[in-house]
Amino acid sequence: VLSVDEQLRYLKKGLAELIREEELRERLAEGRPLRVKAGFDPTAPDLHLGHTVLLRKMKHFQDLGHHVIFLIGDGTGRIGDPTGRNATRPPMSREEIERNAETYRQQVFKILDPQKTEIRFNSQWLDALSFEDMIRLCARYTVARLLERDDFAKRFREGTPISVHELLYPLAQAYDSVALRADVELGGTDQKFNLLVGREIQKDYGQPPQIVATTPLLEGLDGVQKMSKSLGNYVGITEPAEQMFAKLMSISDELMWRYWELLTDRSLEEIQALRAQVERGERHPMEVKMELARAIVADFHSREEAERAAEEFNRVVRRGEVPAELETVALPPDVRAGGELRVDKLLARVGLAESVSDAVRKIKAGAVEINGERCADLRYPDSAGTYLIIRVGRKWKRVAC
Amino acid sequence: VLSVDEQLRYLKKGLAELIREEELRERLAEGRPLRVKAGFDPTAPDLHLGHTVLLRKMKHFQDLGHHVIFLIGDGTGRIGDPTGRNATRPPMSREEIERNAETYRQQVFKILDPQKTEIRFNSQWLDALSFEDMIRLCARYTVARLLERDDFAKRFREGTPISVHELLYPLAQAYDSVALRADVELGGTDQKFNLLVGREIQKDYGQPPQIVATTPLLEGLDGVQKMSKSLGNYVGITEPAEQMFAKLMSISDELMWRYWELLTDRSLEEIQALRAQVERGERHPMEVKMELARAIVADFHSREEAERAAEEFNRVVRRGEVPAELETVALPPDVRAGGELRVDKLLARVGLAESVSDAVRKIKAGAVEINGERCADLRYPDSAGTYLIIRVGRKWKRVAC
Repeated sequence: VLSVDEQLRYLKKGLAELIREEELRERLAEGRPLRVKAGFDPTAPDLHLGHTVLLRKMKHFQDLGHHVIFLIGDGTGRIGDPTGRNATRPPMSREEIERNAETYRQQVFKILDPQKTEIRFNSQWLDALSFEDMIRLCARYTVARLLERDDFAKRFREGTPISVHELLYPLAQAYDSVALRADVELGGTDQKFNLLVGREIQKDYGQPPQIVATTPLLEGLDGVQKMSKSLGNYVGITEPAEQMFAKLMSISDELMWRYWELLTDRSLEEIQALRAQVERGERHPMEVKMELARAIVADFHSREEAERAAEEFNRVVRRGEVPAELETVALPPDVRAGGELRVDKLLARVGLAESVSDAVRKIKAGAVEINGERCADLRYPDSAGTYLIIRVGRKWKRVAC
Repeated sequence: VLSVDEQLRYLKKGLAELIREEELRERLAEGRPLRVKAGFDPTAPDLHLGHTVLLRKMKHFQDLGHHVIFLIGDGTGRIGDPTGRNATRPPMSREEIERNAETYRQQVFKILDPQKTEIRFNSQWLDALSFEDMIRLCARYTVARLLERDDFAKRFREGTPISVHELLYPLAQAYDSVALRADVELGGTDQKFNLLVGREIQKDYGQPPQIVATTPLLEGLDGVQKMSKSLGNYVGITEPAEQMFAKLMSISDELMWRYWELLTDRSLEEIQALRAQVERGERHPMEVKMELARAIVADFHSREEAERAAEEFNRVVRRGEVPAELETVALPPDVRAGGELRVDKLLARVGLAESVSDAVRKIKAGAVEINGERCADLRYPDSAGTYLIIRVGRKWKRVAC
């Protein structure tokens, strides 16, 4: 059994903020399983590694024997865009929410322990709120304080409309903490304000205020912008092992340390030790990065698949002598054609051939390799969100699809 | 049957504002009974003439065959002060609300026609609102627009807290108009903002926006401040006929015209005619004021009682030669004693005797008259909210209790 100090060190790893450490220390000292809540949208989940930072922190609480509540915010999400102005956010049906919850289960239990996870839906208590209950809840908080939230403050200042219902969401989220008697609420840094409202509302309902722990946004593969689908700099947790592995190997040596911290269970001491070895030249960064990639891929697939992915990576990329610094270019849009890529066009567009006809000649001559395999065909399967590592003789390009 | 123009003239009499006249004209032209709503607090009603300005306007709609809805706002009133900070506003029980509703019935049906009045409680539809319904309702209006309301704007500017639930009340009131499909909503000028929210929300729910008609605040007997219980310048509608009559006779000749307009059904033309007669010296203002007092007293008692009150007034006051300008002074607090007034002390305090012993001597000598009756006792019944007209020889005082 870990001491309170050891538990605290493990739980604090990688957090953006912890409010307040003393309170968490006191509750850990009580020795009982804490009730740890984190809320999720009921929209179709397709998680990437950025989402797993929060899930992993939930897991850390589970590792120490605490009770984790995976809360699906269907009470509000089901409403869609109530102004009716945003047609792209239609209300969700019960079935749709159930389907998404099932997808969540499949994805999040790759990290969370299903035995120690309680899945809840906030419609259970929000739907039971009467007009009177709503009035009582809303009486607990002032307009001015809600308008202090960064995004509200900005919109209010700029005269961008804020509908009254938007003020109700943070209060409803806070009420979730009351309904669940949460000891701790976890969320991204962008949730900090809402999580703090939870503290206030719990006090008003006679409960001790929850401890608020926020996890940082994960940088994407580029190391600059946050990981996101739309920026294409992400690793989806359902991607095939090889693809995941190759993407992870593309990050910078510097970003690697951040990923060690946020995407593995290694302690800060272990990570510091690794880093020291690299800095003293005792280990090659590439080797340590492969260890990271293996660890992450194993979480979402298996140790064996991770091993195979590492071997494949070695075979395709290292044997092919991929240059350490490989230029990544975006896929030119006009090379897509019916679920496939026109390789000849692509080579010409990214400068690996002088023209389309030159490209055709090179392909036919067997001079073109994609992801370590000779490419003899003018077409190649189109798989969005992946990278193609293309080699033509001594020239290389990484193409982001 | 009156023409639309004639109806409009009758309904517009004494209004502070009408939004919009064209729309009211159009709906009157439809020839159907309009649904006319006015909302009232469920707190214990003890109405004074100030309240009857609104009730009378409701009656005017009834006079023209329209359907009047007397809405008791129990849905919100039942909650009391939800912050729990104001102990003087405890939540009301169902029984208490029912009792108050009964008192309302007894009082308002002195003006309204019970056959043409529908009494409703907004808890009927507010209690049926789900969390989802509330979100949808609140999505219809922006925070910024609610904060434009004068009192909110002031508090927001000054940093005085506004609880979120206070924003919900105008929306709930607006939703009442939706639930009742109101054509017209009546209210005091202080309600203007809320009534206008009703217009917007009705549009959002696919209904034509209600016409908003506000009635002015009635000046109290002093002609300066608004009529109010706490200022003591009021006439309660359950006061005895004689007292009501005497109080009404105490108003200024100028204020009398305002009372004619707001407290009787006389048309503006009739009132103008009366005024012209007074101005040409064809009628004495005192005579016209007695006609006004008789008309008002008859509304709350009967024509016969009004007649008797007029006679009593003549007997007590006119025969006693009460001076036209009579000084009114407040009751000195230390003359109250166990439901009675110490007349000797009172005379000394208000300058009608040189000392308490001088007062005792005068009372015993039969030189003191109160409200036209000789006062031979050192004690007099204490009746808060009334006036005592006291005469000692040629000296007079009116004392407000």
